[in-house]
Amino acid sequence: MGGDDAPESIVEGALLASELNVNLVLFGDETKINKLLNNRKAGHITIKHTEEEVSMSEKPISFLKKLKMTSLGLATKFSGDDLSHGTISAGHSGASVVAASKYLKRKDVRKPVLGTFIPTSENPVFLLDVGANVDTKAEDLLMFAKLGSEFYSFWSGKKNPTVGLLNIGSEKGKGDRESIKAYDLMDEASSEGLFNFVGNIEGRQVGGQGKEINVVVCDGFVGNVILKFAEGIAVSLMEMLASGLKESARSNIFIPLAKGGIKKSLKSVKKRLDYSEYGGAPLLGLKKPFFICHGSSNPKAIFNAIKHMKNLIMRQNGEKND
Amino acid sequence: MGGDDAPESIVEGALLASELNVNLVLFGDETKINKLLNNRKAGHITIKHTEEEVSMSEKPISFLKKLKMTSLGLATKFSGDDLSHGTISAGHSGASVVAASKYLKRKDVRKPVLGTFIPTSENPVFLLDVGANVDTKAEDLLMFAKLGSEFYSFWSGKKNPTVGLLNIGSEKGKGDRESIKAYDLMDEASSEGLFNFVGNIEGRQVGGQGKEINVVVCDGFVGNVILKFAEGIAVSLMEMLASGLKESARSNIFIPLAKGGIKKSLKSVKKRLDYSEYGGAPLLGLKKPFFICHGSSNPKAIFNAIKHMKNLIMRQNGEKND
Repeated sequence: MGGDDAPESIVEGALLASELNVNLVLFGDETKINKLLNNRKAGHITIKHTEEEVSMSEKPISFLKKLKMTSLGLATKFSGDDLSHGTISAGHSGASVVAASKYLKRKDVRKPVLGTFIPTSENPVFLLDVGANVDTKAEDLLMFAKLGSEFYSFWSGKKNPTVGLLNIGSEKGKGDRESIKAYDLMDEASSEGLFNFVGNIEGRQVGGQGKEINVVVCDGFVGNVILKFAEGIAVSLMEMLASGLKESARSNIFIPLAKGGIKKSLKSVKKRLDYSEYGGAPLLGLKKPFFICHGSSNPKAIFNAIKHMKNLIMRQNGEKND
Repeated sequence: MGGDDAPESIVEGALLASELNVNLVLFGDETKINKLLNNRKAGHITIKHTEEEVSMSEKPISFLKKLKMTSLGLATKFSGDDLSHGTISAGHSGASVVAASKYLKRKDVRKPVLGTFIPTSENPVFLLDVGANVDTKAEDLLMFAKLGSEFYSFWSGKKNPTVGLLNIGSEKGKGDRESIKAYDLMDEASSEGLFNFVGNIEGRQVGGQGKEINVVVCDGFVGNVILKFAEGIAVSLMEMLASGLKESARSNIFIPLAKGGIKKSLKSVKKRLDYSEYGGAPLLGLKKPFFICHGSSNPKAIFNAIKHMKNLIMRQNGEKND
């Protein structure tokens, strides 16, 4: 059990999930977890004691050696051995990708792919890859499209979601070497009915402007930069706005009185942008679901990750969600 | 003379620039321009009549043939022939890059590079390349660093600005093939005193969060996607906020009364994010300055582009700015 606020946030999130009718297995320090549970009702939780963990700042050379003894390694292997339906990690992202690649069977892919929702509009874009792969080839982008489309369908229940290729222009023929090739591959796959390709997508659309789009594929370098830029700019805009309001309050006496309402609006925007609503970033291309949560996940984010994973597993098994 | 609002915005912007003590040569339809000038005092403006122009939606195959007869081609050649100090275009971006590459002498670079300010904090990041180059090599990124550092110094007056490499992690060794190589090249150039390299920069910092940084270099595909994403997300956030305030106004009677002040704050944020404050995106690596303005530039953006170009030219010539 890892993460910046582990095990507190994870235990609290797991407790919230009692209403979801799921069985949870927590991998971590049994004494610490029991202390946090503090005799609260947790019939849905089982604890597997582990001695080792991957710390958030650890380098590959150090975590690779001990991975199989850590909470991360053991939790993932547990799923790989068919003892659980899926894995959620709020620990070290790089180590999570390594553990998933090592202990879970792969679909027909070279490497797992990390996707995430970019929550900039009513219907957020599901962007992949956001950092598990770099130096991506056209064939990889094609595979991302298949995996993204499949995941989005299971996640949202929408059949045949729209899939776009992130590019620097909307017309065919735009982009770098691999994007130009990927366009043709995706177009061909789409005409064979593999997914619903709608062409090149520019940054503006991922930012919530223009035609609604469900899934957008890109190289992991580009996706990672966008994801982090989005986090940065959202905070910056809120800061600018707060300081602007403070400034305006000097000349408009109603602003302090309207404060509660303004705060509520800012909160609703923050909530929309909040990663924790989505729970976690799915690592795709594996035979068992694996979600990577933000290192600083709060209990709500952990709860949402559990909820989304349950729904995903049920849809994959053809069952109806609650 | 091109652009979505040409020639109106350009003529108005040129008129505003009378206070800058510059001589402007406008390339376009003389009759139309004179009609717009409408006998207003414009001693600083000369008109060169041109019959042809590149329309905003034109394909390379079509504009390449006639480029030398267009307002864009002739204005650029005018500068290349040392008849002007620099060129500003609000027309077709792709055609502008082509015209500049064709008519202006190049510094020791393979291709010109497009830079722009990402206005997310007090001290906006100057990001390059934002779309003139794709499939960038490590050597190109090194060149971007030199050009960006030099431009930033002239533009802001700051000596030895900080230069970072856009990447998916802050540590050395992170990133794709070319970024890993570029880190070493930039580090070496920095230790030789060519510019002030401060290491890898993540998307969050370009979004205004974290240590202040002046210049960030990246491949043109990545830069273009960020630039457009920033435009999209800024609009989306404002829309979300407006709808949130409308919602809150139902339960808080002071919000309608505070409306003026709130609007003012939103405006100040919009102004901060506004490309037109920066006037235009410089195309670097050429022996004459060339600015590409947004196709939808308003008169203020054109005015600011003229102002910044004047200051740049004066600094390059070792003169003091006004």
